[in-house]
Amino acid sequence: MNAATDPPPAPAPEAPHDLDALRERLRDFAAARDWERFHSPKNLATALIVEAAELLEHFQWLTEDESRALPPETKAEVATELADVLLYLVRLADQLGIDLHAAAAAKIAANERKYPADQVRGSARKYNR
Amino acid sequence: MNAATDPPPAPAPEAPHDLDALRERLRDFAAARDWERFHSPKNLATALIVEAAELLEHFQWLTEDESRALPPETKAEVATELADVLLYLVRLADQLGIDLHAAAAAKIAANERKYPADQVRGSARKYNR
Amino acid sequence: MNAATDPPPAPAPEAPHDLDALRERLRDFAAARDWERFHSPKNLATALIVEAAELLEHFQWLTEDESRALPPETKAEVATELADVLLYLVRLADQLGIDLHAAAAAKIAANERKYPADQVRGSARKYNR
Amino acid sequence: MNAATDPPPAPAPEAPHDLDALRERLRDFAAARDWERFHSPKNLATALIVEAAELLEHFQWLTEDESRALPPETKAEVATELADVLLYLVRLADQLGIDLHAAAAAKIAANERKYPADQVRGSARKYNR
Repeated sequence: MNAATDPPPAPAPEAPHDLDALRERLRDFAAARDWERFHSPKNLATALIVEAAELLEHFQWLTEDESRALPPETKAEVATELADVLLYLVRLADQLGIDLHAAAAAKIAANERKYPADQVRGSARKYNR
Repeated sequence: MNAATDPPPAPAPEAPHDLDALRERLRDFAAARDWERFHSPKNLATALIVEAAELLEHFQWLTEDESRALPPETKAEVATELADVLLYLVRLADQLGIDLHAAAAAKIAANERKYPADQVRGSARKYNR
Repeated sequence: MNAATDPPPAPAPEAPHDLDALRERLRDFAAARDWERFHSPKNLATALIVEAAELLEHFQWLTEDESRALPPETKAEVATELADVLLYLVRLADQLGIDLHAAAAAKIAANERKYPADQVRGSARKYNR
Repeated sequence: MNAATDPPPAPAPEAPHDLDALRERLRDFAAARDWERFHSPKNLATALIVEAAELLEHFQWLTEDESRALPPETKAEVATELADVLLYLVRLADQLGIDLHAAAAAKIAANERKYPADQVRGSARKYNR
């Protein structure tokens, strides 16, 4: 094999590299199973919080320090819960026709204006209301 | 300034186009404000579910059909809540050293194996437990 | 055994008839196991929402009509989840020194003032914001 | 009026002293406003978790120690959130025909069997899974 001249491998189809690819794959997944009828925004927002709680459950009795140093098997379970939240989030945005990237960019910009670094540094405004 | 002949503006730097860019921007945001100490995984998982509930609140008294046809101003508010969930999700994955894209790809693949389209189509297995 | 003349059985000690009795029993339960140190208000509020999500999970893919007619085994599971929420609620109020009955009575009175029956009847104010 | 000699006021009728009285009052409240149609179990379980999140929000950035020593105004707000959770819990149990006290008593008894005090004391089983 000649790494210099061989064409690069095609991206694995099962590894979407951005949220748009994820959205398409979830759309196909639901369509192939005839599950769109369950995926009303109300139901998806409900499923999302149920997954957010399964994520939180891993941390509920831990100290903050313990939560920074999860054992490997817990970390693997947490990764799966993070994925579940992301999948429902992408699916919900799709059903509502909302561009997640644009919404996230707008929110970060709003936060940067709301909490100017030179004014809140060290003061923990927002956190000590 | 001549709008007709000026070159188009460069893409706004505040519009990350993928989760990696989002992660970097959130990392800078927290560092510039000295807020890392609040961002333990336990606290971020808590903040995430609080945002998931603010999202859900928009749907709580709607019928499923109503949730599919939000008025524009509600949709804009929902977009902001979706963004909040995504920001905490990306920040939490970063603090835990978890690759969100890889986790999502693994979970979709697992779901595809768990619910084969040719077996569950029309039967709504999973939904009628 | 003579049902007519035997004294009535003592109330079962395991059936608290009000929230105060429940609070006392939960206090004893935690003390006997040396679990108070886990029961910070922050942790209890987290445990409460995790249980609220386990409750909600039973309803997430149901229609509203289906949720009004649960099969008996689902209803039994839901009863257990309702109990879990109540136990953490009572425990949290106790740890904070809050009188749940007084708080509930105050909130109902506030709701009655906020939504006068003769003004909101049929208009579904609150629900159509 | 002579405060020193007047008889004490009768207990306010709006202060229910147990969950049964609370249930009746909430039933009247919804009926008087024609709000039963919004109160499907699915919707009430959703409203409950939204309130649980508003409760949790007060604690999200606090340390556990800080959560044990809330300032008075925060404590008053938390009391209102606890009340909101309780009201939806009682209303949901009523709509499902579930006896909350019986469910709570059964769950405590189950916990006492599951975590025998002489075996778990000091070991924090359950908390260190």
